[in-house]
Amino acid sequence: MRNATRIQIINPNTCVEMTTSIAEAARQVAAADTEIIALSPEKGVASIEGHYDEAMSAIGVLELIQQGKAQQVDGHIIACFGDPALHAARELAQAPVIGIAEAAFHMASLVATKFSIVTTLARTKIIAEHLLHQYGFERKCAQIRCIDLPVLALENDKQAAYEKLLASCQQAKMHDGIGAIVLGCGGMAEMADQVSLELGIPIIDGVRAAVKLIESLHGLGIQTSKWGDYDYPLIKG
Amino acid sequence: MRNATRIQIINPNTCVEMTTSIAEAARQVAAADTEIIALSPEKGVASIEGHYDEAMSAIGVLELIQQGKAQQVDGHIIACFGDPALHAARELAQAPVIGIAEAAFHMASLVATKFSIVTTLARTKIIAEHLLHQYGFERKCAQIRCIDLPVLALENDKQAAYEKLLASCQQAKMHDGIGAIVLGCGGMAEMADQVSLELGIPIIDGVRAAVKLIESLHGLGIQTSKWGDYDYPLIKG
Amino acid sequence: MRNATRIQIINPNTCVEMTTSIAEAARQVAAADTEIIALSPEKGVASIEGHYDEAMSAIGVLELIQQGKAQQVDGHIIACFGDPALHAARELAQAPVIGIAEAAFHMASLVATKFSIVTTLARTKIIAEHLLHQYGFERKCAQIRCIDLPVLALENDKQAAYEKLLASCQQAKMHDGIGAIVLGCGGMAEMADQVSLELGIPIIDGVRAAVKLIESLHGLGIQTSKWGDYDYPLIKG
Amino acid sequence: MRNATRIQIINPNTCVEMTTSIAEAARQVAAADTEIIALSPEKGVASIEGHYDEAMSAIGVLELIQQGKAQQVDGHIIACFGDPALHAARELAQAPVIGIAEAAFHMASLVATKFSIVTTLARTKIIAEHLLHQYGFERKCAQIRCIDLPVLALENDKQAAYEKLLASCQQAKMHDGIGAIVLGCGGMAEMADQVSLELGIPIIDGVRAAVKLIESLHGLGIQTSKWGDYDYPLIKG
Amino acid sequence: MRNATRIQIINPNTCVEMTTSIAEAARQVAAADTEIIALSPEKGVASIEGHYDEAMSAIGVLELIQQGKAQQVDGHIIACFGDPALHAARELAQAPVIGIAEAAFHMASLVATKFSIVTTLARTKIIAEHLLHQYGFERKCAQIRCIDLPVLALENDKQAAYEKLLASCQQAKMHDGIGAIVLGCGGMAEMADQVSLELGIPIIDGVRAAVKLIESLHGLGIQTSKWGDYDYPLIKG
Amino acid sequence: MRNATRIQIINPNTCVEMTTSIAEAARQVAAADTEIIALSPEKGVASIEGHYDEAMSAIGVLELIQQGKAQQVDGHIIACFGDPALHAARELAQAPVIGIAEAAFHMASLVATKFSIVTTLARTKIIAEHLLHQYGFERKCAQIRCIDLPVLALENDKQAAYEKLLASCQQAKMHDGIGAIVLGCGGMAEMADQVSLELGIPIIDGVRAAVKLIESLHGLGIQTSKWGDYDYPLIKG
Repeated sequence: MRNATRIQIINPNTCVEMTTSIAEAARQVAAADTEIIALSPEKGVASIEGHYDEAMSAIGVLELIQQGKAQQVDGHIIACFGDPALHAARELAQAPVIGIAEAAFHMASLVATKFSIVTTLARTKIIAEHLLHQYGFERKCAQIRCIDLPVLALENDKQAAYEKLLASCQQAKMHDGIGAIVLGCGGMAEMADQVSLELGIPIIDGVRAAVKLIESLHGLGIQTSKWGDYDYPLIKG
Repeated sequence: MRNATRIQIINPNTCVEMTTSIAEAARQVAAADTEIIALSPEKGVASIEGHYDEAMSAIGVLELIQQGKAQQVDGHIIACFGDPALHAARELAQAPVIGIAEAAFHMASLVATKFSIVTTLARTKIIAEHLLHQYGFERKCAQIRCIDLPVLALENDKQAAYEKLLASCQQAKMHDGIGAIVLGCGGMAEMADQVSLELGIPIIDGVRAAVKLIESLHGLGIQTSKWGDYDYPLIKG
Repeated sequence: MRNATRIQIINPNTCVEMTTSIAEAARQVAAADTEIIALSPEKGVASIEGHYDEAMSAIGVLELIQQGKAQQVDGHIIACFGDPALHAARELAQAPVIGIAEAAFHMASLVATKFSIVTTLARTKIIAEHLLHQYGFERKCAQIRCIDLPVLALENDKQAAYEKLLASCQQAKMHDGIGAIVLGCGGMAEMADQVSLELGIPIIDGVRAAVKLIESLHGLGIQTSKWGDYDYPLIKG
Repeated sequence: MRNATRIQIINPNTCVEMTTSIAEAARQVAAADTEIIALSPEKGVASIEGHYDEAMSAIGVLELIQQGKAQQVDGHIIACFGDPALHAARELAQAPVIGIAEAAFHMASLVATKFSIVTTLARTKIIAEHLLHQYGFERKCAQIRCIDLPVLALENDKQAAYEKLLASCQQAKMHDGIGAIVLGCGGMAEMADQVSLELGIPIIDGVRAAVKLIESLHGLGIQTSKWGDYDYPLIKG
Repeated sequence: MRNATRIQIINPNTCVEMTTSIAEAARQVAAADTEIIALSPEKGVASIEGHYDEAMSAIGVLELIQQGKAQQVDGHIIACFGDPALHAARELAQAPVIGIAEAAFHMASLVATKFSIVTTLARTKIIAEHLLHQYGFERKCAQIRCIDLPVLALENDKQAAYEKLLASCQQAKMHDGIGAIVLGCGGMAEMADQVSLELGIPIIDGVRAAVKLIESLHGLGIQTSKWGDYDYPLIKG
Repeated sequence: MRNATRIQIINPNTCVEMTTSIAEAARQVAAADTEIIALSPEKGVASIEGHYDEAMSAIGVLELIQQGKAQQVDGHIIACFGDPALHAARELAQAPVIGIAEAAFHMASLVATKFSIVTTLARTKIIAEHLLHQYGFERKCAQIRCIDLPVLALENDKQAAYEKLLASCQQAKMHDGIGAIVLGCGGMAEMADQVSLELGIPIIDGVRAAVKLIESLHGLGIQTSKWGDYDYPLIKG
């Protein structure tokens, strides 16, 4: 058995309210001796709703990974559903790094043969599709649904957002032939339990899934492989 | 946060020594308040080295799942690398059920872009291939290597088995373009740490990976979905 | 040219009426000198409608395979659409073993670019999906439709079952962009001709397809390969 | 049960010796009441060893299909391993049409988890790859090997050709992890039994496989679907 | 920099009006010093609407390729959306050969993550599906729509054809989640600009796409590889 | 016909010598009236040899895209073989944006059935693999070979780099069953012609391929689709 786990959660956008709600969601499931260090970059994009936002968030994410590494955290979570800069972060880090999209996909696959994703804006669907395909989950995902609300609306009008989310999840349950639903935005983390209670099926929030996966890897003594593809970035000469 | 986790680990073969070593491996990584209940069927096959052995082990596995359910365990692990009767067990259970092959594949994917599998006999490769393909990990697995030893030799001549395993893992490290290695047999669980120390890359043992995944799902309050494909078996009338 | 063909047809459930109707369907297409030996296990599940039922039927299937082998039959058919214990049976047998799902998929692919499957309960769709994917027919299957009747209703209320089946096949013909339909249950075998007459397109029943495939393999002198993956199960020492 | 089967076997090249040897191979396995009508186009290519040869053979194949249809044969076989003009022939025909490559792939899949192909010239490998991929057998084929002899050498120097074929099949057996071998040229049909005797594993010759598949479809009363993709060619107005 | 480009455009059907309109479309985008030589076979099929028509058109296409080669053109375009005889033509030619379906798929992939195809008759959809799959674009194509008009209607009643095409493209834009549309028939080439103006999204016509790709390859000094699969057809001995 | 084409080529690393040699290579194939504007970011990474370098280069690439857009260029090329920030750049731009990896893959597919990639360091192979898979070219690429030289060595010791590149291309030609070779680094652009002369097969350099593709799209009047996935980035409110 290992020591307590210190987990750095990086919200790649600059919305501090979202960082707070992500941290709260994380702490709900963290082990008693797990420390959650949630933070977001000082500069960057207010929300991540496309490839451009993702690319612009990468430097902030990587600076925070570097900082977490200096603090010797036991694992890093990238808390945006596009898993921005994930491979780059793994090159930089020694501890494990997990994106919340992959975390949710892995967990959903363990309790259902198929899942649907409910995300924010239609334009983010292509990002989820690329991830499903790259990670190997394309046949596990029956449908990607969106609630047509920008990311920040999740913080600004929580009730309206919740209602749209619930309605979309109900559609997924009834029509997609699935057993579980993956929430497609870090900002939805705090709504997962309530939706799950309403629908009676597993609702997977990637933030909390990632917390447990980092605890798991730490407990197993498994770190990011530095042999091969995820070796540290080369120093240019 | 949830209560302590009670995990039932089912060794699908009747080799009690293997059950014991699996249980030990599991306890090494289990959380302080996790209880490991390891057992194997009274009747069945001495080792699982092909499709026939797998099919014959299914009833024993499912009886134990039923028994674990009656004892209200928080999760079930099927500790044979072919994940025998996994989907059937999920129909029967309410708690999560995890096979050690899938557990290892999921964990390996989090710390390396590719892994190799090192298993026992060549004839078990096809089972691993089918699982990789069904689960969606076929592109993550670079190679399946075997040490040409029957499963029970892992218990009967541990030193020889270890040496063969180590040699095969070294080959994988040097030639397969991989970052991690998955051990392809529950009986190899106790050797994982030593191999990892020697090679300096993540060696993933599915037994221990599955323990942490069950703890994770329990911590998240996520059970097997009973909506759709994994609904309880129908009562015939 | 070979001798007459003796074919063992195993109905994996214990419903004797279904065994009888399967045998009748088989005899309709069998060559004059082909002998059909149809039987079902004495103990087991009354019908197979999920992974659990499938797993529980495996021992019965394998015992009958063993028995057929002792009787030196020329081929074995597993007459349940999930092809339960197929790979295990091939390890055990020397003669060819064919599942009715694969038999139907192969035959349908020879006369149409795409087919739909019409099966019983929605919960069996996942089994068909897994088989299509494992066998390589996923792109040939346009749709899996179900008539929402349990398997035994096919025997208990044949007229109602036929009407539901016909309606679903008509939907498939009109909307799925297909050229043929595969019947997704051994219990539908006797209805195939009538549906085909009504719709004017090939309706493939796996039971009869499998009979002709076994006759074909026997005629070619081809048996299950005992080199490699389908070698006989290992004797444990 | 149906009447006797009349099968038209089209050798798409103009080599009459090959037509004869194909016919002989076919008759070895045909049922007692099956009539084999083997023929080749009067004009065309002497052997088919690439895409150009295939394309040039198409008109001859289709004229013979038309002729066989006028003679009301019960099925057509296109006896060249590239299955030239297969989809076109199915549009034209009412009876089933089978290519020898697909016939061999289907049969091999029933008795082994994987097969290798042994063909003539390296330049024909791409044709086999395209077919495997289009038909869905790409994961069943472990390797495509070639003996580096032009097609006509199979007729002109049978002994040398046999020795090369045997050597290549032995390599496949020992190194490819397969259970069966598919012969990749109609001209190899007559050598299949001898190779099989030597190696002790199933050697699948597509010509004879196709004969049994046509007999099977005829016995099942299944013809090429004329609903949808294989409808008769449109008359231009 | 290279010299001026001489491009042979082969309309595989015998409809001279279509050849003319294809040539006009091509010249609209050709560089100032590009020469367009458009022609169609003297004998052959009036329009290509299925596999049979395709196969029958192959000889005509290949004779014209041969002729173009004798005239030392710098590239050949096969201006039918099924890309008939493409691989055969590449064996024959030294200059690059491009089919209009592949040309359109490549270009569409450069400006949108997904496209839909709008083609003529439903029976040609299977040809487009096979090409998408063979070329690797199956995940880029969201939908194949058809306007249910025979190919020649595009010439005979241009206004009606245009209206149907426009309506179908509008459907694709609104419902398919795509960013571009590929026109699925050479005869639609001249309508592309007008549809694009109406819809405000890229409408890709393969004829003109192919002209620019030939100019590109010529400008790069890249010809069809004669090493390996596309080597010249073998002379039979 | 359109006006002259102004193409912005972005070398994502800060190595000015490489920018110069890329520009020269581009101008060799550009049309007479095409203007090449080659530049690299002022700050950033000296060379791109992994995911981290790629992520760090994204902001520089996107700033230059923005600048090129302000200058109303007709197309943008991202001249690093990992196609960094490609999707993000397409959101930002109105003109077409092409990465040199995709450009090379598309061109190679037009003249050969398969190609190999020869790149710099082994650690960049995973990036190429991800791109092949995302773009749909994974079956067209037979092998990824590397010359084990860092990117900057291509500029610092051109002769040694050339010799290693040539040797690796020769290996690919002889052993990979391919018809063309794709150069896996922008810094190799100027060596393409010499290697092609030596080997006699098409050697595809993505920089020059991309120049012609931008000219082609410009000539066709096709810009990046702003409908759907590549719509302009959202302004946050």
